[in-house]
Amino acid sequence: MKTENNLKRQKTTSTDKTLFKNFPMVPRVVFGAGCFSQLGDILLPMRKSSEAPFIFLVDDFFENENFMAKLPLMFNDEVIFISAEEEPKTAQVDVLVARIRERYSELPSGVIGIGGGTLLDLAKAVSILLNNKGLAKDYQGWDLVNKPALYHVGIPTISGTGAEVSRTTVLLGPEKKLGINSDFTTFDQVLLDPDFTKTVAKEQWFYTGMDCYIHCVESLTGTYLNAFSQSYGEMAMELCKEVFLGDIPAKESRDKLMMASWHGGMSIAYSQVGVAHAMSYGLSYLLGVKHGIGNCLVFQHLEEFYPEGVSLFNKMMARHDVILPKGVCAELTQNDFDVMVNISLSLEPLWENALGRDWKTIMTPERLQALYEKI
Amino acid sequence: MKTENNLKRQKTTSTDKTLFKNFPMVPRVVFGAGCFSQLGDILLPMRKSSEAPFIFLVDDFFENENFMAKLPLMFNDEVIFISAEEEPKTAQVDVLVARIRERYSELPSGVIGIGGGTLLDLAKAVSILLNNKGLAKDYQGWDLVNKPALYHVGIPTISGTGAEVSRTTVLLGPEKKLGINSDFTTFDQVLLDPDFTKTVAKEQWFYTGMDCYIHCVESLTGTYLNAFSQSYGEMAMELCKEVFLGDIPAKESRDKLMMASWHGGMSIAYSQVGVAHAMSYGLSYLLGVKHGIGNCLVFQHLEEFYPEGVSLFNKMMARHDVILPKGVCAELTQNDFDVMVNISLSLEPLWENALGRDWKTIMTPERLQALYEKI
Repeated sequence: MKTENNLKRQKTTSTDKTLFKNFPMVPRVVFGAGCFSQLGDILLPMRKSSEAPFIFLVDDFFENENFMAKLPLMFNDEVIFISAEEEPKTAQVDVLVARIRERYSELPSGVIGIGGGTLLDLAKAVSILLNNKGLAKDYQGWDLVNKPALYHVGIPTISGTGAEVSRTTVLLGPEKKLGINSDFTTFDQVLLDPDFTKTVAKEQWFYTGMDCYIHCVESLTGTYLNAFSQSYGEMAMELCKEVFLGDIPAKESRDKLMMASWHGGMSIAYSQVGVAHAMSYGLSYLLGVKHGIGNCLVFQHLEEFYPEGVSLFNKMMARHDVILPKGVCAELTQNDFDVMVNISLSLEPLWENALGRDWKTIMTPERLQALYEKI
Repeated sequence: MKTENNLKRQKTTSTDKTLFKNFPMVPRVVFGAGCFSQLGDILLPMRKSSEAPFIFLVDDFFENENFMAKLPLMFNDEVIFISAEEEPKTAQVDVLVARIRERYSELPSGVIGIGGGTLLDLAKAVSILLNNKGLAKDYQGWDLVNKPALYHVGIPTISGTGAEVSRTTVLLGPEKKLGINSDFTTFDQVLLDPDFTKTVAKEQWFYTGMDCYIHCVESLTGTYLNAFSQSYGEMAMELCKEVFLGDIPAKESRDKLMMASWHGGMSIAYSQVGVAHAMSYGLSYLLGVKHGIGNCLVFQHLEEFYPEGVSLFNKMMARHDVILPKGVCAELTQNDFDVMVNISLSLEPLWENALGRDWKTIMTPERLQALYEKI
């Protein structure tokens, strides 16, 4: 199956416009257990005035006095705790932006996102919308943002999404789940402090880590791959294997999974994700399934596209006693399936990366629905 | 010997000021064979006015009509061809800066370095000095630069130095060979076009590639190492093994060595180089030995510090029929040795990384001279 599949895939890079993408990298990064203590020193020179606050968007998991005491708050800085129970939404971004605009006479000095992919993506989107007119949904797509975002800082508290390094912020909109893909989306500063991941629950740790593992598989087997993305993808993949199949101390495991997430995000710089992400987006849009577990729910059924990847994934599941829910799509109507299939098939670059230029002849709506029905 | 050496080394990171360094990354990068064709599009929006030229500093190896035709020159842009026969010097930077200041009524829009480590380091230093008072030698050291550099672009034409990604520009000054280590040193934009490396002579290819290999060994075995630097170092090391010991097609080899150089440079972000680089700096200062071959001349005699690294290095030498010159230090006077030893021992962070906090008790001037005498 793998060979047949490979035979059908034509290399797309030679004519692809993204071949020579001028990729924006995070221009500043701090790494190390405990490095969160540096945040105050980093923010100080970026304060525009005492009237221009920093807005901290923080996962409400951290809503306690102990955490608040560690935040380097000054002047009229504001902390907004946000639940990460649901995927981030365009309307949620619009509400946050309106609230911040109303409350302060000056534009904020910047936005700091502290949390998993949801909080990081919200921080990116809010910092863009604070400096650009209109609504978040207007910017879902590729390179639609006109003006730079406000200064924004990303501090991941769970490892795997790659949101800390990517040029996208993936949002559920009224019509689609799609990223604001823009050079202005990338964080100006990232703090990688693996100590934050000490308190992550095991299942969440696994699902989010698998987000990294799965986009490495998708990147490394994709038709867009070049030596740049390959080197990052292979490094992230090795780190994932050490973390999820090896036997290393807890601190080393936290350090390495945070680096895996970082490199995994870089790996899709020139490449793209593939079948699992394309399908997972449909699942999230219709059912609100969170991204990490959504990827896992899909990926387990993709052995025909990623035979080695799925085999290793099954080993990781077994090693950590993770059992995925079943019958997630059992009650869906034909209309529901149509919605998911349409959302998924609209993500053309993902399918082209996964299956080559002729992907439409390979992944028909019927075949895609049959895959969803297994979940 | 390795164990004894390891026992003596104390971890330095826990008290080291650089533990939580806020590392500047190159904010923009393009990768791919042929991506040099994008340079014009990249420079256009960065032009300040028709009176503010781009200054191209180019290795004189490329001084021909064919290459000139590919440069995206406009207005009063200037191309300055420079020989890379000698290591870059502080006085050379000062002359270039004075010449550019005299010739143009406005500050340039930016500086583009095209070549190996020498040209890249010159471009970095010239862009710093065009926007800062004084002489290049005044800024040799750590964090002495006050104002941002002019916009500067790095385009490596040979792989291995890591100069395209590092926050230093290493210059021979009147009193020392030392980098201008500064957050402003890092390039604003890098183009990684492996096609440039097609024309590199075999020995130069090997020596410069070994620069990458050797700083990976130094970084990965150093006491400063953390998971960030380790992941980049291991990635670069794997790529070096594929390139110098594997059997891969020429195009793939060029792509991978360019990525090895990139990741190898990132690996010393939180780490440092070690014994080979510390000794090689002394050799360059006294004898003008170029950096790549200088590292090789030293490294072959460092099996007591890097047993596995030197063993693999010897295999790479044999595989590519490289024979290093002998008796390089045979004619030196005691005064010559004193100069080299002093230059080398002044590079304290390199020694501390290599040998731990007690490095002075391990590497005495006598022991260091004995190592130089072998070369």
